[in-house]
Amino acid sequence: MSPIDPVRLTADLIRCPSVTPEEGGALVLLERLLGNAGFDCARVDRGGVANLFARWGDKDHARTFGFNGHTDVVPVGDAAAWTHPPFGAEEIDGILYGRGATDMKSGVAAFAAAAVDFVIATPPEGAVILAITGDEEGDAVDGTVALLDYMNQEGEAMAVCLVGEPTCPNTMGEMIKIGRRGSMSAWFTVTGVQGHSAYPHRARNPLPAMARLMDRLASRELDQGTDHFDASTLAVVTIDTGNPATNVIPAQCRGTVNIRFNDLHSGATLSAWLNEEAARAAEEFGVKIDIKIKISGEAFLTEPGALSDLVATAVQAETGVTPELSTSGGTSDARFIKAHCPVVEFGLVGKTMHQVDECVPIEQIHQLKAIYSRILRDYFA
Amino acid sequence: MSPIDPVRLTADLIRCPSVTPEEGGALVLLERLLGNAGFDCARVDRGGVANLFARWGDKDHARTFGFNGHTDVVPVGDAAAWTHPPFGAEEIDGILYGRGATDMKSGVAAFAAAAVDFVIATPPEGAVILAITGDEEGDAVDGTVALLDYMNQEGEAMAVCLVGEPTCPNTMGEMIKIGRRGSMSAWFTVTGVQGHSAYPHRARNPLPAMARLMDRLASRELDQGTDHFDASTLAVVTIDTGNPATNVIPAQCRGTVNIRFNDLHSGATLSAWLNEEAARAAEEFGVKIDIKIKISGEAFLTEPGALSDLVATAVQAETGVTPELSTSGGTSDARFIKAHCPVVEFGLVGKTMHQVDECVPIEQIHQLKAIYSRILRDYFA
Ligand SMILES: [Zn+2]
Ligand SMILES: [Zn+2]
Repeated sequence: MSPIDPVRLTADLIRCPSVTPEEGGALVLLERLLGNAGFDCARVDRGGVANLFARWGDKDHARTFGFNGHTDVVPVGDAAAWTHPPFGAEEIDGILYGRGATDMKSGVAAFAAAAVDFVIATPPEGAVILAITGDEEGDAVDGTVALLDYMNQEGEAMAVCLVGEPTCPNTMGEMIKIGRRGSMSAWFTVTGVQGHSAYPHRARNPLPAMARLMDRLASRELDQGTDHFDASTLAVVTIDTGNPATNVIPAQCRGTVNIRFNDLHSGATLSAWLNEEAARAAEEFGVKIDIKIKISGEAFLTEPGALSDLVATAVQAETGVTPELSTSGGTSDARFIKAHCPVVEFGLVGKTMHQVDECVPIEQIHQLKAIYSRILRDYFA
Repeated sequence: MSPIDPVRLTADLIRCPSVTPEEGGALVLLERLLGNAGFDCARVDRGGVANLFARWGDKDHARTFGFNGHTDVVPVGDAAAWTHPPFGAEEIDGILYGRGATDMKSGVAAFAAAAVDFVIATPPEGAVILAITGDEEGDAVDGTVALLDYMNQEGEAMAVCLVGEPTCPNTMGEMIKIGRRGSMSAWFTVTGVQGHSAYPHRARNPLPAMARLMDRLASRELDQGTDHFDASTLAVVTIDTGNPATNVIPAQCRGTVNIRFNDLHSGATLSAWLNEEAARAAEEFGVKIDIKIKISGEAFLTEPGALSDLVATAVQAETGVTPELSTSGGTSDARFIKAHCPVVEFGLVGKTMHQVDECVPIEQIHQLKAIYSRILRDYFA
């Protein structure tokens, strides 16, 4: 069996219209490829989305290297704005075009190609797991979470995991992600008593309470950052009342904040603080303040060490670039995997992800496969 | 000529559908009545609204008593909700129903009837002026203001003026208004720089600046009231952003305040304060804050004295109630007349004004005419 061309595999995957929650043929294609290479494959479908679990080697091996990624893609958006058909996988002047070209069919193709070549050419003492989901861009409740649930039930375990999402802002190799800040939002509803502007003492205006509460929340310095994290931040994202009448004091107004927090906080400690501040303002102004809180993800970190060293060394060797270990950016499925095993993320340059004419330089796909291959060699060396 | 029945006159006026800016026949009817009684009448129409000026007696007499009122009414609103036709003037169990029954066709009818009876029965040494507008409920720019402009041009002058608006909250005779607080609104627009909630340092969020500004404005004690005025008040009436995305820091938000102020302030001093606070918040947060200010009316007062004594004595004699001299309530055309001569307001109970099934007890119309008649007798005695 000759080495697998990761560019051709990326192109084949792009031609599968796997817009979340559609499987689109992408996982079927990968299951056939991996099955032929001796992987044990299982479809782990849940809640209308498809996922693929694949393992080469013994189930209970301590040396088990995991890859995680997704084959689902975000919608095309304005189809007329695309210069290249979004599911056409056109290759022009060394660039491959299509939805998922960077996020992240190239990443999945690169690690699948690396894994297959590796286990066939140099069967390792250990196991390689590929946990590939079709629900990362959607609600993500039946994607990687379903795969991890399945693995727990079946006694499947990864010793370490590499997520193949695009991680480099501009230059191939410049960034590995070792964690993320947590994210949560809180929706405040302040309810008072409506009245006439001329007689504010007969009404109970919710707006001064909202103003003071939001000023206090926005003014609080949550921290100054930690070793691996930026400072936590709170952004007031909206305050709305919808009262067009200057002679009316409204009964109610709403305000929303979004918090990005590091490992000094948790959703629970921040929720307690928000509730405390709301209760304080409610008492000061004699109004009612309701809060709805949604914690999108807790802060998580894989401390720099063996895993990040392994990845960084491979990146450096293949690209000549020394990657930064970062916790920046939006959330990813690594937040789920963190509870299972050490996890880091490394992939190519994500500049065009989610955009019209999403594309990837073919050279980067080859580089990425080379990096993943070297990681496998070094891990099992 | 037998005395004029103010109830029948009120009913006749209610049947004129004089919703602002429609004259509806109301001023035509009054002009005929007053003309027949020897008043010099002039229609003072301006900007699409009708007004009526009427004087009995010599133009340049120092003893000239003026009445002011309006025949225009607010719209019917939900016509289906009315139990009695809004322009039907139905009289049931001593109650007269219809739009304008209290605000203020009854008031106009009462002072017109009192004035006509008075000048015919006991022609005074002096003059009586009726300045009746058809633009009080609307923009009020071409109503009483047009009448006063006309009077200035023609050398017409009132020595004192009584506005016949409903002034009693619950009981006939309980309140005379000798002034009003001023009213103004300010619209603030805070402009920052849009951004992603995860990177607030790259954006410039307008909301914390708005929150602090509104907290400061609402927290400031403007004063503790004066001899004749309640404390000045500021109400934050709305704050709006319209940003549905928790991961986006908005570029702009808007907030509005309404201020009711007494004679310790003016629109100008308060505007200066608002501009100062806006500039301070803009500097603190590095945002741009624009303000649009509208001064609806300055505070005004006719110091208790001859005019309020005259009216209070008549009210007391006819109702047995000692009226309070108040500066409470919304704005009225008295704010324009104040610049011309001493002015007070007295009328019946305004409870149903602007409501569905607006109505007036017939007895109150008779009482009101009796009070206005006594005022005229006492004034010219
Ligand atoms: Zn992705
Ligand atoms: Zn009125």
